Amino acid sequence: MAQNIYDRPEFFAGYSRLARSVAGLSGAPEWPALKAMLPDIRGRRVVDLGCGFGWFCRWAAEAGASEVLGLDLSQNMLARARAETPHGVVSYQVADLETLELGEGSADLIYSSLAFHYVADAARLYAGIHKALAPGGHLVFSTEHPIFMASTSAGWREIEPGVRTWPVDHYFVEGARSTDWLSAGVVKYHRTLGTTLNALIRAGFTITHVEEFCPTPAQFTANPALAEEVERPMFLLVSAMR
Amino acid sequence: MAQNIYDRPEFFAGYSRLARSVAGLSGAPEWPALKAMLPDIRGRRVVDLGCGFGWFCRWAAEAGASEVLGLDLSQNMLARARAETPHGVVSYQVADLETLELGEGSADLIYSSLAFHYVADAARLYAGIHKALAPGGHLVFSTEHPIFMASTSAGWREIEPGVRTWPVDHYFVEGARSTDWLSAGVVKYHRTLGTTLNALIRAGFTITHVEEFCPTPAQFTANPALAEEVERPMFLLVSAMR
Repeated sequence: MAQNIYDRPEFFAGYSRLARSVAGLSGAPEWPALKAMLPDIRGRRVVDLGCGFGWFCRWAAEAGASEVLGLDLSQNMLARARAETPHGVVSYQVADLETLELGEGSADLIYSSLAFHYVADAARLYAGIHKALAPGGHLVFSTEHPIFMASTSAGWREIEPGVRTWPVDHYFVEGARSTDWLSAGVVKYHRTLGTTLNALIRAGFTITHVEEFCPTPAQFTANPALAEEVERPMFLLVSAMR
Repeated sequence: MAQNIYDRPEFFAGYSRLARSVAGLSGAPEWPALKAMLPDIRGRRVVDLGCGFGWFCRWAAEAGASEVLGLDLSQNMLARARAETPHGVVSYQVADLETLELGEGSADLIYSSLAFHYVADAARLYAGIHKALAPGGHLVFSTEHPIFMASTSAGWREIEPGVRTWPVDHYFVEGARSTDWLSAGVVKYHRTLGTTLNALIRAGFTITHVEEFCPTPAQFTANPALAEEVERPMFLLVSAMR
């Protein structure tokens, strides 16, 4: 079973205070880029892997999806989702992405925001997603970028006066990375970009877009704290088609 | 016209002394990985963009290609190729990848080793390559990895005792990077991985493999100096199909 950090009280409390938790999709700077990668979902069946508070599920329902299934490991997240982002075509269920089994051809879009880096066996997950998609169906997901995750000393460094840089090391040492983010010992799994893309291709997907997220000029202007995002990618956004 | 560094005497002399120049393909640690990405070329028409001393052209001819065209900007390289790697089915010609025009459907495999990072307009190049390939044809190339190229202070740093790291900054500032490698002011063009893959997809290609080169355990044992290559990718290897 995957590590269930979201049901730790201190993690859940910290996560609940993030902009993306308070403001929903509009609090996530990468959302416009991810949204631009989505297919038309009107009348389509949508599954959200790691749905959290259900912001995307409700958005998909309001955008015309015929049914939306939000899956998450965290009972805390699902309780909030059921209370705060309910919708007639949305249902929320507990699921572990490490052992997930979805019905064959049961979805037209499978979406996931910042959940796959918690999954140890991504190849198994991609194969299951491919089987669960109807022919022509889409997978659109974001995950932490391997440049962001690789180093055992991740974090900004000023290596020369005025030059802020992000260290990359251990890039080819794939596997668990333990970090302290909102809670101690949060385990994420580092995979190279090649590993991720080749696993998708091997699962049968055609890669349709690969976005290393960088805020737009308008976002930089509105939120100067984002400026450092031009230095290195934090998120990887991928769309692929069955 | 692209910068013609290979015809500078000091660059050519330095380049001629590299392992990959002296030993040919076997002197390039990434060659086995690149070779594994090639389709069967028996009876196929092959073009090598940036053929240098012609090692790959001769290899392709000996592997059964029906015709091989080696293109390079450098007269020095081509003179050496004609003298040292001649073959009945191989011809060598001057060409500039910035303005390259190839016949429609004239090739089954277009190959390039470490030349595309000298090209300013990669999207134009990919579109031309796509047109030049017969349906089902392949593009297989290597280029410097954006993690290797991005920083304005590229080079190893010891940020903590015993931790050697590679700085990444200015990742989203695409464009020219001037470096001193064998000669002063060598200009290469940094593009994000997303930009490269999306430009190929937009040109009509299906991405079939993305390899961030890491030496094999046998290569590390045979050449301990390669050990640092596990820390960050130096080369990006891509195969794509028309």
